[in-house]
Amino acid sequence: MVVHNETSTGATSRIGDIRKAIDRAGHPALFMVDTISSLASIDYRHAEWGVDVTVAGSQKGLMLPPGLSFNAVSDKAIAASKQARLPRAYWRWDETIAMNRQGYFPSTPATNLLYGLHEALAMLREEGLPAVFARHQRHAEATRRAVRGWGLEVLCRNPAEYSGSLTAVMMPAGHDADAFRREVLERFDMSLGTGLGKLAGRVFRIGHLGHFNDLMLCGTLCGVEMGLALRDVPHRQGGVGEALAYLRENGALTARRAA
Amino acid sequence: MVVHNETSTGATSRIGDIRKAIDRAGHPALFMVDTISSLASIDYRHAEWGVDVTVAGSQKGLMLPPGLSFNAVSDKAIAASKQARLPRAYWRWDETIAMNRQGYFPSTPATNLLYGLHEALAMLREEGLPAVFARHQRHAEATRRAVRGWGLEVLCRNPAEYSGSLTAVMMPAGHDADAFRREVLERFDMSLGTGLGKLAGRVFRIGHLGHFNDLMLCGTLCGVEMGLALRDVPHRQGGVGEALAYLRENGALTARRAA
Amino acid sequence: MVVHNETSTGATSRIGDIRKAIDRAGHPALFMVDTISSLASIDYRHAEWGVDVTVAGSQKGLMLPPGLSFNAVSDKAIAASKQARLPRAYWRWDETIAMNRQGYFPSTPATNLLYGLHEALAMLREEGLPAVFARHQRHAEATRRAVRGWGLEVLCRNPAEYSGSLTAVMMPAGHDADAFRREVLERFDMSLGTGLGKLAGRVFRIGHLGHFNDLMLCGTLCGVEMGLALRDVPHRQGGVGEALAYLRENGALTARRAA
Amino acid sequence: MVVHNETSTGATSRIGDIRKAIDRAGHPALFMVDTISSLASIDYRHAEWGVDVTVAGSQKGLMLPPGLSFNAVSDKAIAASKQARLPRAYWRWDETIAMNRQGYFPSTPATNLLYGLHEALAMLREEGLPAVFARHQRHAEATRRAVRGWGLEVLCRNPAEYSGSLTAVMMPAGHDADAFRREVLERFDMSLGTGLGKLAGRVFRIGHLGHFNDLMLCGTLCGVEMGLALRDVPHRQGGVGEALAYLRENGALTARRAA
Repeated sequence: MVVHNETSTGATSRIGDIRKAIDRAGHPALFMVDTISSLASIDYRHAEWGVDVTVAGSQKGLMLPPGLSFNAVSDKAIAASKQARLPRAYWRWDETIAMNRQGYFPSTPATNLLYGLHEALAMLREEGLPAVFARHQRHAEATRRAVRGWGLEVLCRNPAEYSGSLTAVMMPAGHDADAFRREVLERFDMSLGTGLGKLAGRVFRIGHLGHFNDLMLCGTLCGVEMGLALRDVPHRQGGVGEALAYLRENGALTARRAA
Repeated sequence: MVVHNETSTGATSRIGDIRKAIDRAGHPALFMVDTISSLASIDYRHAEWGVDVTVAGSQKGLMLPPGLSFNAVSDKAIAASKQARLPRAYWRWDETIAMNRQGYFPSTPATNLLYGLHEALAMLREEGLPAVFARHQRHAEATRRAVRGWGLEVLCRNPAEYSGSLTAVMMPAGHDADAFRREVLERFDMSLGTGLGKLAGRVFRIGHLGHFNDLMLCGTLCGVEMGLALRDVPHRQGGVGEALAYLRENGALTARRAA
Repeated sequence: MVVHNETSTGATSRIGDIRKAIDRAGHPALFMVDTISSLASIDYRHAEWGVDVTVAGSQKGLMLPPGLSFNAVSDKAIAASKQARLPRAYWRWDETIAMNRQGYFPSTPATNLLYGLHEALAMLREEGLPAVFARHQRHAEATRRAVRGWGLEVLCRNPAEYSGSLTAVMMPAGHDADAFRREVLERFDMSLGTGLGKLAGRVFRIGHLGHFNDLMLCGTLCGVEMGLALRDVPHRQGGVGEALAYLRENGALTARRAA
Repeated sequence: MVVHNETSTGATSRIGDIRKAIDRAGHPALFMVDTISSLASIDYRHAEWGVDVTVAGSQKGLMLPPGLSFNAVSDKAIAASKQARLPRAYWRWDETIAMNRQGYFPSTPATNLLYGLHEALAMLREEGLPAVFARHQRHAEATRRAVRGWGLEVLCRNPAEYSGSLTAVMMPAGHDADAFRREVLERFDMSLGTGLGKLAGRVFRIGHLGHFNDLMLCGTLCGVEMGLALRDVPHRQGGVGEALAYLRENGALTARRAA
């Protein structure tokens, strides 16, 4: 079981490589991937990468309220589920698959979210998935340039695993990331992500996924830069300037010009 | 007839002083003021300043769609309207005043906007009008600091007449403000105001009124700064930094901390 | 000046016939028609019927909140307006026509209503105007059958002038239509139209225009039938049954079956 | 495990009596009750009736989209859950109870539905739960009178177990309830409930719960009466009239008069 995009650290996993490793080892395990914070934000290929079970949700890249979850399942996974002896009811696949064939669900569906999904998919298709992925990668790179401009460190060390959805930033030692987050919330009404588990208090996270554009990112980074100064966190000013230079020079046309 | 806040130039008129001038001259004219882009954004006092007719609209500081207009009228204005011989129907005051007393209107009212107005007024009261006015003044000053940081000029020369609602910026000679505005629209999906009349092509306008906060202003100013570079408009980088310093050092608590 | 559908009486005017009468008399008058409560509910033909000025609004057949008004104007009307000497500003046509050519308006447009209009027109086209008109005529006939079933009288005497949008019903002598309307409002939360002018207290009006279907009409008529009994208004029960028989036997397929 | 209001049959269970029977038998079983289609529509008392686990949902009496479920649990049930050995994750109570104490949830909550719930509860409190329950009972009785007026049978035989939320109606032998439902859907855009399991094709269900008033019920019953005639289902006309007489004579004031 692997998380495609680790929401709490801003690191992605190389799903295709993991598949190859499983295959090289000749291991029979089902390969299960959580794409909650990556689907429709970062390129992902269930079939091409040989994943058995992909789990996704409505509340991130699909730009909807929470309430829908999606499973993509391989034949191997379905076969395994038929052998599984763990008692199940709501989580059973067979009934859902049978009902879905006729356009129904085995229990009351969240109809309003299905209408929202219809519109979200139309928006994603209108922009085009490659453009959506590129937009998030571009915002991620601009964010990392801002972080380095401030003299801070991105938590994720391996550029091959940088997340397009969010960036976790290390707080300099001796400074409490949560006190900083609180200051930013109170002063600028902006809620940054918290560090989880052993990163609690040591990192804060900047999200840049979903319905998000250049100037929203700029506003976000300005809020971080002001918050660092307000809390006397050692940093260089100018992170925002680095992001502006990158965004400006690596331009994406908006739908307006394209249209 | 005076405009309280000149939307096309970002200059306010000193309404109280004008009243005094009219009084000194002993002139019998009705004093009429357009507050479309100032009401609920910039301090304004119909009765205290001795205005006869104040006209306002729903679509600026009241944060609603266009569709409602408001008239505040003095006894002198009502008396004058009874003598006026210009044919009127829809614009008559007497019928509206009579119907309003019973909670009705002489023609079909925009009921949905009245519900919106109820909510907008609740929002304004919750924040408090002095806080709303101060918020806009603070954003206006941050914007002017950004403009000066870029080495550009604010159109309004008299600090006593600076607008809290919007700031008009002079484009350096030889550069077309509208080409710049188009670039910003296409690249960043942000629509800056155009110059009107003899200022056409020579100024662009930055709005900072209504439901607007620090980070929205920051995003706005970042879009301007990037647009200036993209169009090779002569300027210094760092206008955004000036605004950030001002906003940071002259902080307003958001409702979250206050609450 | 003629009202196409008289909202207060439920009578329509035969616009084409009036045009012919004007022509027969060789009279040079401009022919102006108010279609506020008929446009998109009852068949109307500005050009074919030789109307010079048609006025309409968004809040009836177009199923929108109040806030948009429409003028269709003949060349003759435009020529006349150029000669007219009544001072005008907001109501001038020339500026609007000039701006509309480029897709703009001379003053701030009600943009949100324009989006709503786009959707309303899509809905009307999807159903088809002839089907929309037929739906309203069918509901009007069902309503009249209910009225006659109750032993009451429809105010409009001439079947050629029955309105498809609304039906005004005569209250039996000695019974106050407004007391009846109040009872229905209080008991069933349904607001029936009042009589205006010399019909005040003597008629009540049942609207059946816009986004309205068979069962909404049934609920409406049930509310009237119960209200008549509650106020001891002399009537026969069974008006609702007459309407049901008519609706059932003169069926319109809904979009569901058609699709 | 008992269903408080059986959605597919329109029969309620006497929960308090069942508790007493369990107690009389001295049986140690946990008493679990499904209140999906009764909570906030039919009087229900988790603590007073000694229920151990009550399950509810947002999509019926709470008038919200589907997406929230509620559990009320007794100390005995919590103690039992600590001993239970069935593997659980999402369905665990302990984590939710612990997080709820601080106002949070162990997994992403459906925030938008929580805002909706806040409003739904305000609406229910404004009307008052006893008035809400009485409104549904009154609509249920009016519905049963219509059914008997048509000469049809209510599926639920025991008046003590009539449901206030919905009424299931037996289709006369030889007539397909689903063909009837389809006709009503196509002709009147009204979706009646289907029979489930061994009642498939033999009953249809009329819902009268949630945000529902007298005239909505009237429209509903008119649609059924017309549908019966259109499908040549043997019945007497006049069921609607019976319902009207009952609603009229057993009046509830709406909020308007009360206020």
